[in-house]
Amino acid sequence: MDAKQKLAAVDRYVEAFEKGDLDIIRSLYADNAVVEDPVGTDPHHGLEAICKFYEGALGAGIKLTLSGTPRCAGNAVAFPFRVNGPSMSIEVIDVFEFNDEGKVVKMKAYWGPENVEQG
Amino acid sequence: MDAKQKLAAVDRYVEAFEKGDLDIIRSLYADNAVVEDPVGTDPHHGLEAICKFYEGALGAGIKLTLSGTPRCAGNAVAFPFRVNGPSMSIEVIDVFEFNDEGKVVKMKAYWGPENVEQG
Repeated sequence: MDAKQKLAAVDRYVEAFEKGDLDIIRSLYADNAVVEDPVGTDPHHGLEAICKFYEGALGAGIKLTLSGTPRCAGNAVAFPFRVNGPSMSIEVIDVFEFNDEGKVVKMKAYWGPENVEQG
Repeated sequence: MDAKQKLAAVDRYVEAFEKGDLDIIRSLYADNAVVEDPVGTDPHHGLEAICKFYEGALGAGIKLTLSGTPRCAGNAVAFPFRVNGPSMSIEVIDVFEFNDEGKVVKMKAYWGPENVEQG
């Protein structure tokens, strides 16, 4: 999987939030994917649990803005972004790991209370 | 390990490059640490191999500048920065994972050819 495909996946991810489109999320993840958001909390295992997790965020009208260039390396891409919600924003770094089919098989989101800004 | 200690480790890491001080690097990593830089290449196993790896970078006068706020989560911190070398710069995201003693036990550096700028 080349960098171009990984960067396209990041763009699609941002687009999913922009459009509030859960089908895009569904198309990005592998059936057996694991999402840990934030790192240190119980992971969501499998596509259905993952879609359920995203449903709330998409429904709340949360948008993402990249705050730096994505970094592709090995089977992964790491990218910094800002989550813009109705009453707060959060600075996050996500790491996507891809399987051989080009689907995200592991997602880790790094953020903590220090990265949350009210208003 | 609280966020404050993790953020201090990031600051010390930047300082190690600023001062060209390998002893700071040595103090940050656990004896059994593993460094994968960039992700997808053969990792450096153990403190001696890791110090040898950093020796070249420190000797070359490479400096680091944070390009965003570090994100603490679980036992980890992810942070975006720019590597400034004599003839190029690189946009990188590092992830440190800490052990119970507060030492970095795993480091992964995310960057690829797309993140390298000549001059």
